[in-house]
Amino acid sequence: MKEPTLNPESGFLRLRVDLSYDGTNFAGWAKQPDQRTLQAEIEKALAVLTQSQLATIVAGRTDAGVHAEHQVIHVDIPEKIDISNFAFRLNQLLDEDIRIKSVVYAPANFHARFTASARTYRYKIIDGARITPPLDRHDSAEWFRELDIDLMNQASSLVLGEHDFFAFCKFREGGTTIRNLLQFEWVRDEKGYAVATIKAESFRYNMVRNLVGAAVCVGEKRFEPEWMEKTLKDKVRIPDSYVFPAKGLSLIKVDYPSESEYLTRYNYYMSSTASEEPES
Amino acid sequence: MKEPTLNPESGFLRLRVDLSYDGTNFAGWAKQPDQRTLQAEIEKALAVLTQSQLATIVAGRTDAGVHAEHQVIHVDIPEKIDISNFAFRLNQLLDEDIRIKSVVYAPANFHARFTASARTYRYKIIDGARITPPLDRHDSAEWFRELDIDLMNQASSLVLGEHDFFAFCKFREGGTTIRNLLQFEWVRDEKGYAVATIKAESFRYNMVRNLVGAAVCVGEKRFEPEWMEKTLKDKVRIPDSYVFPAKGLSLIKVDYPSESEYLTRYNYYMSSTASEEPES
Repeated sequence: MKEPTLNPESGFLRLRVDLSYDGTNFAGWAKQPDQRTLQAEIEKALAVLTQSQLATIVAGRTDAGVHAEHQVIHVDIPEKIDISNFAFRLNQLLDEDIRIKSVVYAPANFHARFTASARTYRYKIIDGARITPPLDRHDSAEWFRELDIDLMNQASSLVLGEHDFFAFCKFREGGTTIRNLLQFEWVRDEKGYAVATIKAESFRYNMVRNLVGAAVCVGEKRFEPEWMEKTLKDKVRIPDSYVFPAKGLSLIKVDYPSESEYLTRYNYYMSSTASEEPES
Repeated sequence: MKEPTLNPESGFLRLRVDLSYDGTNFAGWAKQPDQRTLQAEIEKALAVLTQSQLATIVAGRTDAGVHAEHQVIHVDIPEKIDISNFAFRLNQLLDEDIRIKSVVYAPANFHARFTASARTYRYKIIDGARITPPLDRHDSAEWFRELDIDLMNQASSLVLGEHDFFAFCKFREGGTTIRNLLQFEWVRDEKGYAVATIKAESFRYNMVRNLVGAAVCVGEKRFEPEWMEKTLKDKVRIPDSYVFPAKGLSLIKVDYPSESEYLTRYNYYMSSTASEEPES
């Protein structure tokens, strides 16, 4: 199997594929033996259409049970392949919990992962001992106590910007835990659920679900909002029991700079250790 | 098994149970041999908690694949049964695609079906060849062409009020097809989906999905809005191919009059032939 490079090898063309999935019945993005994963399902469908074994590169490697309203991948395909109606033909092969939204030839220097400038996630919580409507059970987590959104926003705003997020990252060998948190905001949606929007250039493994768990500790008044900042500064990892479940989490957007910035962005990634770690 | 009457038999007390379900994996409300149905699942759970075989009566007998954000049933249970935490205990026994929202003792003369004054349904369509986001696939139907909401509202308004809805009712033996349509309105929701709210005192079998299919014929400009009124008046049944799929349909509300009106409402039902037919 070919590992993609910054630009496709001779004889190949790079496709940008935008897609959406319900992560409920997947063991996450990355291929694993004997598991139903998003990567495996998509590469299987690509193999049928191209008669080649091709490797996909993904913008945000989502964990088991995490959803994507909007995910981006790239794949280099032999240039002889006809890509007309490619999204439609992929969707015919895929189960309906994965849907390809679009397939286009990628501009030069486009790399789904290493030219992405930001990832945005949503986390949805049904709080206050409410009964979860069955149709909402797949993409929301439950919390028994009522949450105070204002306190959560106070706490969340205290960790915005570039910091060492060690306290909110599950331990993994290698790589820096310094990240630039661009947005972390809570609202009540039209159903009254507590919904966070969380955006960063990139995330460490479990970082979003750790930040959500910490904000909930403040929202239920176990700790003052300042505890969030203190935890960040003290670099003492929060307990695993604070980590919120995967099913409430959805990748909702991947941002890319303008085409002329792709190479700069790629080199920035390559020079930073951010490239060493899965993002969610 | 005891068949409930207007008021519970001596030694029994009537419960009003409000609930919600994802109809995807149910063969509809009503019990059927060797099928997973809502009624069977709920009566099984009630049997565990009460040690009795009890029959439930439902406000809106939803078809296979139809959902309920808000459904109401009643059941008469032996008066010695302790109903504290009854909703919680039922939810522990039920799968998570059914959730009991509340359980209370019903007021005198309450009958889930025959004192209900109106049922409101929602129908959700993802139109214009858009790809259905996988998390929305369970409760929306797809339509390839773009729909004109204004035309659909014009058409829908022409069939409001009390009429013989024969043209929009699947043939069933017995019962009148006269119904009083109280609301039939289309909006674009926050995701841009075409969403109908359809309210009547009661509905005939398949009537909502027939009305939706007819409105879509107008929305895609196959027919003028006036065709809807003409079809109603001509009483020529529309083709089955116009009937929209179950999965886009959800019962969202059941209305009851004030307690003092229950008996009047019950007698009104009993005197009309509306009582002879399933409602959705």
